[in-house]
Amino acid sequence: MTSKTPVAVVGASGYAGEELVRLLLAHPNVDLAAATSRQLAGKSLAEVFPRFAHQTKTTALKFSNSDPKEIARSAKIIFLALPHGLAAEFAEPFLSTGARVVDLSADFRIKDADIYREFYGHEHPAPDLLGKSVYGMPEIYRDQIRGAQLVACPGCYPTSILIPLRPLIRRKAIERSRILVASMSGVTGAGRKVETDYLFSECNESVRPYAVPKHRHLSEIEQELSNLAGERITIQFTPHLVPINRGIVTTIYTDIAGNVVNLDPEVMFSGAYADEPFVRLLGDARLPDTKHVVGTNFIDFAWKIDKRTNRLIVMSAIDNIVKGASGQALQCMNLMLGLPETAGLI
Amino acid sequence: MTSKTPVAVVGASGYAGEELVRLLLAHPNVDLAAATSRQLAGKSLAEVFPRFAHQTKTTALKFSNSDPKEIARSAKIIFLALPHGLAAEFAEPFLSTGARVVDLSADFRIKDADIYREFYGHEHPAPDLLGKSVYGMPEIYRDQIRGAQLVACPGCYPTSILIPLRPLIRRKAIERSRILVASMSGVTGAGRKVETDYLFSECNESVRPYAVPKHRHLSEIEQELSNLAGERITIQFTPHLVPINRGIVTTIYTDIAGNVVNLDPEVMFSGAYADEPFVRLLGDARLPDTKHVVGTNFIDFAWKIDKRTNRLIVMSAIDNIVKGASGQALQCMNLMLGLPETAGLI
Amino acid sequence: MTSKTPVAVVGASGYAGEELVRLLLAHPNVDLAAATSRQLAGKSLAEVFPRFAHQTKTTALKFSNSDPKEIARSAKIIFLALPHGLAAEFAEPFLSTGARVVDLSADFRIKDADIYREFYGHEHPAPDLLGKSVYGMPEIYRDQIRGAQLVACPGCYPTSILIPLRPLIRRKAIERSRILVASMSGVTGAGRKVETDYLFSECNESVRPYAVPKHRHLSEIEQELSNLAGERITIQFTPHLVPINRGIVTTIYTDIAGNVVNLDPEVMFSGAYADEPFVRLLGDARLPDTKHVVGTNFIDFAWKIDKRTNRLIVMSAIDNIVKGASGQALQCMNLMLGLPETAGLI
Amino acid sequence: MTSKTPVAVVGASGYAGEELVRLLLAHPNVDLAAATSRQLAGKSLAEVFPRFAHQTKTTALKFSNSDPKEIARSAKIIFLALPHGLAAEFAEPFLSTGARVVDLSADFRIKDADIYREFYGHEHPAPDLLGKSVYGMPEIYRDQIRGAQLVACPGCYPTSILIPLRPLIRRKAIERSRILVASMSGVTGAGRKVETDYLFSECNESVRPYAVPKHRHLSEIEQELSNLAGERITIQFTPHLVPINRGIVTTIYTDIAGNVVNLDPEVMFSGAYADEPFVRLLGDARLPDTKHVVGTNFIDFAWKIDKRTNRLIVMSAIDNIVKGASGQALQCMNLMLGLPETAGLI
Repeated sequence: MTSKTPVAVVGASGYAGEELVRLLLAHPNVDLAAATSRQLAGKSLAEVFPRFAHQTKTTALKFSNSDPKEIARSAKIIFLALPHGLAAEFAEPFLSTGARVVDLSADFRIKDADIYREFYGHEHPAPDLLGKSVYGMPEIYRDQIRGAQLVACPGCYPTSILIPLRPLIRRKAIERSRILVASMSGVTGAGRKVETDYLFSECNESVRPYAVPKHRHLSEIEQELSNLAGERITIQFTPHLVPINRGIVTTIYTDIAGNVVNLDPEVMFSGAYADEPFVRLLGDARLPDTKHVVGTNFIDFAWKIDKRTNRLIVMSAIDNIVKGASGQALQCMNLMLGLPETAGLI
Repeated sequence: MTSKTPVAVVGASGYAGEELVRLLLAHPNVDLAAATSRQLAGKSLAEVFPRFAHQTKTTALKFSNSDPKEIARSAKIIFLALPHGLAAEFAEPFLSTGARVVDLSADFRIKDADIYREFYGHEHPAPDLLGKSVYGMPEIYRDQIRGAQLVACPGCYPTSILIPLRPLIRRKAIERSRILVASMSGVTGAGRKVETDYLFSECNESVRPYAVPKHRHLSEIEQELSNLAGERITIQFTPHLVPINRGIVTTIYTDIAGNVVNLDPEVMFSGAYADEPFVRLLGDARLPDTKHVVGTNFIDFAWKIDKRTNRLIVMSAIDNIVKGASGQALQCMNLMLGLPETAGLI
Repeated sequence: MTSKTPVAVVGASGYAGEELVRLLLAHPNVDLAAATSRQLAGKSLAEVFPRFAHQTKTTALKFSNSDPKEIARSAKIIFLALPHGLAAEFAEPFLSTGARVVDLSADFRIKDADIYREFYGHEHPAPDLLGKSVYGMPEIYRDQIRGAQLVACPGCYPTSILIPLRPLIRRKAIERSRILVASMSGVTGAGRKVETDYLFSECNESVRPYAVPKHRHLSEIEQELSNLAGERITIQFTPHLVPINRGIVTTIYTDIAGNVVNLDPEVMFSGAYADEPFVRLLGDARLPDTKHVVGTNFIDFAWKIDKRTNRLIVMSAIDNIVKGASGQALQCMNLMLGLPETAGLI
Repeated sequence: MTSKTPVAVVGASGYAGEELVRLLLAHPNVDLAAATSRQLAGKSLAEVFPRFAHQTKTTALKFSNSDPKEIARSAKIIFLALPHGLAAEFAEPFLSTGARVVDLSADFRIKDADIYREFYGHEHPAPDLLGKSVYGMPEIYRDQIRGAQLVACPGCYPTSILIPLRPLIRRKAIERSRILVASMSGVTGAGRKVETDYLFSECNESVRPYAVPKHRHLSEIEQELSNLAGERITIQFTPHLVPINRGIVTTIYTDIAGNVVNLDPEVMFSGAYADEPFVRLLGDARLPDTKHVVGTNFIDFAWKIDKRTNRLIVMSAIDNIVKGASGQALQCMNLMLGLPETAGLI
């Protein structure tokens, strides 16, 4: 029996942190050595997360308020599940001890500090680290993730958008200036934010667009699409809040490129993703539904060609907290540790 | 005290029928003289709709299975709240008695029997009547509705789409070939259909696109947009089912027309709708939310210009059962009877 | 045309305050002269409550932070929709000007300052006023409410419990020491409290008991039952939070009194309530459902005798914000002003 | 590597059947050899349950319409996930081949054919088998389940009620004639029944009692309580339908027995359940919440002594589809096969 790799979660009180704890506790190859939270310090995981209270580990393990050095000594991989802005502050001391960091915030996703400032409204707190991070989407950066010291996990919306668009961009199947996206997200997407807008009676029986026209996630979506294209891509993106706990549905409208005849999305998507462990292609006969992906690390996506308009419509579904956050973080960890990519996830 | 005008509802067992009954019972100028339903015949309205059971009228009035002539004798306006296809069969005998009909189904919305066949999959059962019907959207056809013998009330999605688009089309503010729409509807939109897909546990915690890429409502949306434009318009439209009882949010993506400089949507929309009693313009600082329109006959809509893409995004919200069905039907009735347009609706 | 009576709402930012504003705006005989809120001062009602934004009045009327004297000058009835504890502080200055006050908080419901302390955990801030208040349940205190200067509107749970129990207690039909109650409430029952427990993702897909075994409402329930009985009554009461916006279902278990033979609840309940405008008796063939009372001022209730156990089970449903709060407050106001009791409520 | 035990699911199209398939596919020691369904015959599991579509097995395995003999040849344990009434018909041919059957319906729970008739309204279709079945609640019948040929899995409500009550009954801690229960269930509890009552828009924003006063589950609850007590016990039970997919909360009111002083529920419950793998005791400081048990095989329960009334209130939460159905069935199977009781369940 081989020993398990110790890992730590910094800032485990939010929805992504809680899900990460759930996944790590069930993982066959790693051991949750520490979980930190200023506000929960001293409480056991069992107290804070009654759902896991039967696991012996959760009674023994208490939230700590430890300093980075101490945590770094006890863990090979450190997950940061902190609010945007705070993650960048915490990352530096960890990295300086040689620890490997998987950050779930937006802090290291944007390579260009100017774009970060434009979308996040303030200077990046640690611009020197931007060059070191790898965007944690295995479907694009699998090899770089394996060796990375700092992984910046993608946002939930970007995950639901980039995976379907990648083959279309790379194969030049669509007009790059004419990509429009509508997404619908469950309320955990806002985090465990204690604000009036996210009270039950404000969200239940409510559907609403928000952050129009310039949601922060646009910055990383366009960065990655531009990288794939080798030229600057600007898209349209409108998120909507819907009354479910978890799940995102994304509908992407694309114009089939003028010089493309007889586009066969089945061939193109299968070529790109047949071997991907967490991509499920629904084809053009079924449509995605959040309820089929909730609790899993899968992205399901389907497509339809509209002959009336010569457009290709692609529709995806993910669990925003799993493939859109903690599950994808674990997938990255598996790659970093040389474990099977699906360990603890299927 | 003037006497009230007698009206009848044919097929009152669905959600739109029930809402129509609710509105008619509260209306100051009309009297619900008859409600018919084959399956409910003999039951009182109070039994079937416990919500209204305190109203004396609902105890006295029983669902009947009367023949058209009898109903036509007792009512000046006859509402048809029947499934698509059935309405056309029922309309003819009513019209032949000289009665005025407000139909909530899709049967008389499409002027072109070929398009009807293309979208509805069968021959129109009463093509001769197509030329007689008026599309029941007061914001476009107010004058024609006043004198109409047969009003075809718009679908819920079309209502949420056409009202915002109308001024943009007429003023040539947008590229007519580049209109893309994403809508999210509550489950009453499917009617009181007893099918697995609409069971609570199939819809709750679920978001899903459906009827992609060619939802039936496209036929009437494109018919009306084309009429407004004076040329054929084809759009993209994707509906999604979300777990709320009532409400539609529609997000419309438009490209600002190439020759338009300094588009001021505020001026344009105010010019078109400042005096409309059921249009609330939110401007570009607020966004719509289904919870602000549920139970009302209002359409709320907001807009944003995205300078990065030179697009105008328009977002609307309605109650699919009120402005999207029964409320709009009542609004038409008010016009037909020469009553204040808002009677019984505000 | 007679002039409307001016009224004011103090503390209109919560759910009960908002509903009160809605009802007052639609009321035929009163005029909302002022609405106050420290945090919203300066904003128009239309801004804060987009649902009402079409009403001219809501654009003109701004939340104020006026002092009591000023408000008292402008209004004949002053509604307090403030948090518990705060209402008592505000009531005194209003009452001293001679204004009539309808308080929606718990502050003046308990006649005995010791019991108040026991259940609310602190001394009553204005014990001298306790003797002046009338418990605002028209079904019990109609006559006293008409002339009251200070009305203490009942809590939502007590409303759902006391109305069904009253005839049973008065007619000595049940064992007074053996009353057990289970209630289920929608989340607006907690008010617009910005706390983690009431976030969407904490309440959705969750059902939970709370405040067991001694919820604060027990104090007023037992006070009123004891008054009706002429002896001290202690009951069992367990509330549960369920994921709906509005509505309470209450199930009451009673033992039929030993000396009662052939209890006929139909006769007893009809005798008590046949003329009550807001009580709907469902009998023993139908069961209540929150969806039939939401948005209304009705209490629906049904009963079943279980011959196996010789118990009478009574089940009620109300809208916690209407009959359980603002609607009942309006009903009291109608009585105080000599208006028809149902004005603005049916 | 040891080979896996083949098992079959008969009637896998409902919610319990689907969950059973999910659990069996993930189980380390058994192999799902067959799944039958008349209506789904010929379709692969992947088609019917898109959630599992990534598992190779679900693509290969098709729903069959096989006859019992054939199924019995291929499987050591046969699960019946059929509607009540149908299960009894299917059980006989399986049992006659020597197969071991785990039935999820109510057909074999009641030992007395007269009581079956009283509660289910028709003669039992296979009364000879009643004596052979073991009630599948491991917390009570663990030893008998190990050797049983026919296991009758308990209903969801009974599971939530019997486990907390068992030690109280056996230790004579409570008055046996004074047990009252209120339960709230999610909508999957009704099965995948395509009826108006279970449509989304009929259940959402609705809470309602049903089957008052004599729900069918009373028959098995009282049978088991009577067995534990050694005397006939009759209880009061009221179920309520609440708008969640999964989960039951049960609140049990008991009178502490007159001769019991200083009842210490902690000691009593710990004595009974400290070693039970799926019972989590919350004590008297925390309260249960369906969201902490959904997706798990745990029953959580808490208690409070009300000194004012000398009652003990016990509140439990389970997932109605897991511990209340398929999970408990799997737990029984583990016992029958000599596997660790928690295999495939934690």
